[in-house]
Amino acid sequence: MIGHGFMGAAHSVGWRQAPRVFDLPDDVEMAVVVGRDADAVARDAAHWGWAESATDWRDVVARDDIDIVDIVTPGGSHAEIAIAALEAGKHVLCEKPLANSVEDAEAMTDAAARASARGVRALVGFTYRRLPAVTLLRDLIAEGRVGRVQQVRAAYRQDWLVDPAMPLAWRLQKEHAGSGALGDIGAHLIDMTRFVTGQSIDAVSGTLDTIIARRPLQGSGSGLSGVAAEGFGEVTVDDVAIFTGRLAEGALASFEATRFATGRKNALTIEVSGDAGALAFDLERLNELQYFDRSAPEGVQGFTTILVTEPSHPYVSAWWPAGHTLGYEHGFVHQAKDLVEAVVAGTDPHPSFADGLAVQRVLDAVERSAERDSAWTSVGEPARH
Amino acid sequence: MIGHGFMGAAHSVGWRQAPRVFDLPDDVEMAVVVGRDADAVARDAAHWGWAESATDWRDVVARDDIDIVDIVTPGGSHAEIAIAALEAGKHVLCEKPLANSVEDAEAMTDAAARASARGVRALVGFTYRRLPAVTLLRDLIAEGRVGRVQQVRAAYRQDWLVDPAMPLAWRLQKEHAGSGALGDIGAHLIDMTRFVTGQSIDAVSGTLDTIIARRPLQGSGSGLSGVAAEGFGEVTVDDVAIFTGRLAEGALASFEATRFATGRKNALTIEVSGDAGALAFDLERLNELQYFDRSAPEGVQGFTTILVTEPSHPYVSAWWPAGHTLGYEHGFVHQAKDLVEAVVAGTDPHPSFADGLAVQRVLDAVERSAERDSAWTSVGEPARH
Amino acid sequence: MIGHGFMGAAHSVGWRQAPRVFDLPDDVEMAVVVGRDADAVARDAAHWGWAESATDWRDVVARDDIDIVDIVTPGGSHAEIAIAALEAGKHVLCEKPLANSVEDAEAMTDAAARASARGVRALVGFTYRRLPAVTLLRDLIAEGRVGRVQQVRAAYRQDWLVDPAMPLAWRLQKEHAGSGALGDIGAHLIDMTRFVTGQSIDAVSGTLDTIIARRPLQGSGSGLSGVAAEGFGEVTVDDVAIFTGRLAEGALASFEATRFATGRKNALTIEVSGDAGALAFDLERLNELQYFDRSAPEGVQGFTTILVTEPSHPYVSAWWPAGHTLGYEHGFVHQAKDLVEAVVAGTDPHPSFADGLAVQRVLDAVERSAERDSAWTSVGEPARH
Amino acid sequence: MIGHGFMGAAHSVGWRQAPRVFDLPDDVEMAVVVGRDADAVARDAAHWGWAESATDWRDVVARDDIDIVDIVTPGGSHAEIAIAALEAGKHVLCEKPLANSVEDAEAMTDAAARASARGVRALVGFTYRRLPAVTLLRDLIAEGRVGRVQQVRAAYRQDWLVDPAMPLAWRLQKEHAGSGALGDIGAHLIDMTRFVTGQSIDAVSGTLDTIIARRPLQGSGSGLSGVAAEGFGEVTVDDVAIFTGRLAEGALASFEATRFATGRKNALTIEVSGDAGALAFDLERLNELQYFDRSAPEGVQGFTTILVTEPSHPYVSAWWPAGHTLGYEHGFVHQAKDLVEAVVAGTDPHPSFADGLAVQRVLDAVERSAERDSAWTSVGEPARH
Repeated sequence: MIGHGFMGAAHSVGWRQAPRVFDLPDDVEMAVVVGRDADAVARDAAHWGWAESATDWRDVVARDDIDIVDIVTPGGSHAEIAIAALEAGKHVLCEKPLANSVEDAEAMTDAAARASARGVRALVGFTYRRLPAVTLLRDLIAEGRVGRVQQVRAAYRQDWLVDPAMPLAWRLQKEHAGSGALGDIGAHLIDMTRFVTGQSIDAVSGTLDTIIARRPLQGSGSGLSGVAAEGFGEVTVDDVAIFTGRLAEGALASFEATRFATGRKNALTIEVSGDAGALAFDLERLNELQYFDRSAPEGVQGFTTILVTEPSHPYVSAWWPAGHTLGYEHGFVHQAKDLVEAVVAGTDPHPSFADGLAVQRVLDAVERSAERDSAWTSVGEPARH
Repeated sequence: MIGHGFMGAAHSVGWRQAPRVFDLPDDVEMAVVVGRDADAVARDAAHWGWAESATDWRDVVARDDIDIVDIVTPGGSHAEIAIAALEAGKHVLCEKPLANSVEDAEAMTDAAARASARGVRALVGFTYRRLPAVTLLRDLIAEGRVGRVQQVRAAYRQDWLVDPAMPLAWRLQKEHAGSGALGDIGAHLIDMTRFVTGQSIDAVSGTLDTIIARRPLQGSGSGLSGVAAEGFGEVTVDDVAIFTGRLAEGALASFEATRFATGRKNALTIEVSGDAGALAFDLERLNELQYFDRSAPEGVQGFTTILVTEPSHPYVSAWWPAGHTLGYEHGFVHQAKDLVEAVVAGTDPHPSFADGLAVQRVLDAVERSAERDSAWTSVGEPARH
Repeated sequence: MIGHGFMGAAHSVGWRQAPRVFDLPDDVEMAVVVGRDADAVARDAAHWGWAESATDWRDVVARDDIDIVDIVTPGGSHAEIAIAALEAGKHVLCEKPLANSVEDAEAMTDAAARASARGVRALVGFTYRRLPAVTLLRDLIAEGRVGRVQQVRAAYRQDWLVDPAMPLAWRLQKEHAGSGALGDIGAHLIDMTRFVTGQSIDAVSGTLDTIIARRPLQGSGSGLSGVAAEGFGEVTVDDVAIFTGRLAEGALASFEATRFATGRKNALTIEVSGDAGALAFDLERLNELQYFDRSAPEGVQGFTTILVTEPSHPYVSAWWPAGHTLGYEHGFVHQAKDLVEAVVAGTDPHPSFADGLAVQRVLDAVERSAERDSAWTSVGEPARH
Repeated sequence: MIGHGFMGAAHSVGWRQAPRVFDLPDDVEMAVVVGRDADAVARDAAHWGWAESATDWRDVVARDDIDIVDIVTPGGSHAEIAIAALEAGKHVLCEKPLANSVEDAEAMTDAAARASARGVRALVGFTYRRLPAVTLLRDLIAEGRVGRVQQVRAAYRQDWLVDPAMPLAWRLQKEHAGSGALGDIGAHLIDMTRFVTGQSIDAVSGTLDTIIARRPLQGSGSGLSGVAAEGFGEVTVDDVAIFTGRLAEGALASFEATRFATGRKNALTIEVSGDAGALAFDLERLNELQYFDRSAPEGVQGFTTILVTEPSHPYVSAWWPAGHTLGYEHGFVHQAKDLVEAVVAGTDPHPSFADGLAVQRVLDAVERSAERDSAWTSVGEPARH
């Protein structure tokens, strides 16, 4: 595993739990974690249950005893590491976003395609796909339960920037984060919409905004985000992204990604409406799925709250009895399971790097639209380089 | 209309709106309101749209131009007025509870039976029956959608007595109110359970409690409830009633009526569980009904929130388009409509005085059980006289 | 009252109930209803409790015994009737939208300004303002409880067009309805946003879409909407409107109005987020208001569900005790009350025709933006004529 | 760990995750799992990450290299194993219920008291205490936020017995399970009420019922529950337990435990009402806590939904950022953490065996009350032997 921040902790749970919960077709050994600060990474490696730590990812990627490289560094470094790992014949799990630019994402996707031809697998970590309720949402659409998709309404709302005293973290600086609310949480909306509808987003019209443009500098350096100076600095990414997309089969989808939705902590919500029904999900109640069935008898129609904890629901049978809920981290366990299974089975897991690139292209198109006064912008147009 | 408190206002809305919303088979004229205080009743009569006011209910009951007598006085006076009115050939709508004692309720039921034989109708005002969601609940059970009823869980929770400064109102004095939480709001639970299940409650085990036993006396007299003196007085009714009942077909039903459920304002909740499904209702969200259908496909089962505002739902087609909600008072409009229709059609409306007596007998059995250390007590045993 | 469709029924409840519930400073007499079809209007007038009916609105507007003219016809006819009524010295209540064009709305606003100078009042019927929870939402913002408004998220979602068999009603024809989802329900979002934030919407970027463009013609004529022919016709208004607005003080507001949100019946939702808190409302649960208070102690923060039925809440003390809910129609009662009080007090009630014009200008700007590939469009620019 | 059913899996997650998430004061090694079937226990041990397996718990309890014995066998065997382990100087974690009889529980509590004097710790596994929302509920009551507790309303509702085809599992046979819904899930209600209020339950009145008394025998034997024969057998435990308790400081608490609440999967709900506020919890939404604060300003009171995922909430800071939810199994991680910390610190963790005995005494009193026609029964009376 390259990197060891918050995502490192989550991925570690995934690798640790997957073989203990599911019957995996091969063993999983948590070999080595890589980080710049030798002491810090050694501490995290020991704490999270990895056998070793290291400071040079190139050395690790070159090791013969490593089969899978899991990348949880900030987006700007993904391309270099992932391409090197794939070329070294390692299966790669790369945390989202795939990259900070379309160009990088294209190069990674090309590398993944070449690797796949050699039996090497690549997966980008849009982990929410693997929450049981989200997989169920996708399955129910695939079964035709919403019929023709006519509308999508999606939002990802957090509030951690409402406080003006919140310092200028690396996620608020374009050179480190690539993008703001759009790239960080809007990316989830795009991936989830593509995943559950099975449709591409072909054009967008969008607006970006930075509500608080200056923030206090962080007093002490730590990792990538450390800023030694005091005073104030410029927020160079968006706080809020509002955009509308056109799906391949014609439906409109509205999107809102914001870190200024006071009181909303992690409110990824999506509702897909079709001529046969509708499905709605809220990440803050991630064990539930709302389903409206237009074919239900007159008089008893309504949104059904499915508690997605039944043995028949995706991934659930390996866990607990009905009614015993899962949490955020379980998506990472399912991701680890699915990757191991794909590696052993010799199949490409989803979401592929091509999926990650598709998300990146939509993000890029939103940025281009925002620069063009929100004019509708084709996702397929050549990206800015 | 005899009486003119809070219930007088609600009944007045019923009479005023019913002919303007529904196509009634006969005209409704709001003739006269009766109260002890001539000025007060004249004011209310004018305000609520009644043609006249009066102070002697006997005079009014004797008038030839009166067809329906609507009784909204405290429970202790119901029997005398209702029996006189029925004997005078007036159709009677009597607010719940039917009476403060089983003895009174029996006399009223006898009078209603005699009256019915002469084409005179009697209705006791368990108005919640006529909220669309409650009628729908009953209809869905009658259609078999919950199957065999195996459990009922019902509660009526309010919090207006939590404040110890709340004065000793007439509802807290046994001589005026007859009973406390049990008789006032527990009565609704009993009637609703009988109504929706279609089953009698045959035995009970119950506990009554008075959480705050002494309260400040009210400083100034007003109507029946006025207490001139200052100082403190004894609460002589129950604040909380918790009881379990056995339904005719064997299911257990749990009941809780309380005025000490902090934060709950008017939370009448009932859930009926059967071998085919379940239905749940909450009066604070009275336009909604929760329905669990065990025959729904595996994987999409759950409680469906039916927004009971569709034209196909009971009473709704006369009101607004789907999604436009009704409120508390609409039950009174439906009650007025149903009574007028029954009178014209020559049929006995529900809930009958016999239904009101049945409720009274259950209340009485709960009191007897509470006095017997909560031992199970048959409702059918001769009542205390 | 000029017109007698669904809105006629709702306004009639308002006029009938207001004087019976509130202590109005003057009497209200329901004088006359005007409609094209003499029989139909006579029937409705009698049913709803109006003294007379008539077929020529000009005659009625000229009558000396008429003080208030209430206009509930389709939007295209509002300007002519309202201006005539104001010029005849009648106070005017005009159902929303104020008009089908900015031009008409401007003429009406001018007429209202001239009338106001003569003591004649005008009110446009954005009735939702007068639901207790919405007025409370506005009041809490005015008190500073959300602080600086940083985001608004609003949607009005219905599903009555999901069924492709739904015929081509007048609301789907531009010549009658003026606009589709945008003008009909999007107008409510615009008014409510302006009302609760106290800010204008200064610019917009929007997209309109017609999901089902051809619908069966209605077989039989009735009122304005009758279409005798058979076959299919073109839907000439939008089904879905998605737009983003910029508020006067800088915040972004996202809006979505749709008749294709499967399972959503009347889901007007609005959430206002600020640096001190947030407030959220859902019309399908119109007795509730969600409030997030950033000043609450750490550890117990969250959205509070306020059941807006306390005596201290707007309009509520005239109705029922705490916990006894109101419904859709109560907004019309409050509107009638407020208009009568304003007329007697000699003050201009809100929302004024100028408010109605402001809404119209935003709607127009959305249409212009949609025609310009969703480019941001100033509301203040001269409107299309 | 002695035993390896469903609870074995859950406890294993606890032991595996605790040292990787929290900074524990000592190392945790997952040594050995004990089961009757050598192959089955070897399989589970390997799968769950234990170093070894064994078939004789006495051997394991005697091993010098074992510090903690975790007992997850059915309740009837708890006493023998736990007492032996404590006497061998092992710290003991014993899954709930502590025992199947008061007598056993008393012996265990005596053994734990003796062990404590020697520095050996004992903990009974009422794991729900350690869900962040439940610990927060307790903390908020301890801080005085509900004031004087005046009412408790608790229920644990499941529906896995609604299907009459559900076979006669060991949980439905008194000789194996000790009790039915009462002992299995009612025990949680009792422990949670004691825990959050800090009060004992001193007397009870209760009713037990078996809704479906005959069930098909299981065709094939497996573990303790195997029944080889075919045909039908008698359900010898209760399906439903409804009881009322009197808390030490006088409040009434109502309880309902049922496996026949159609559509409810794991609905442990508890609401504690006091003169300063109320708190409510629902296990199916275990990341949320409802809080009503009577000291909030008039007009904005209501139940606040606290999303218990903030760093300041109990146990949360070791996990994920705000808004990222936990699930059922996290209680087991917290339990493992707290036990290790207590062992190292030399303090007795809660819930103690004395707490487990107290629960057992309440269960016993409910059974005695049920046998005495639901008469109120003192918990403190000498138990049936």
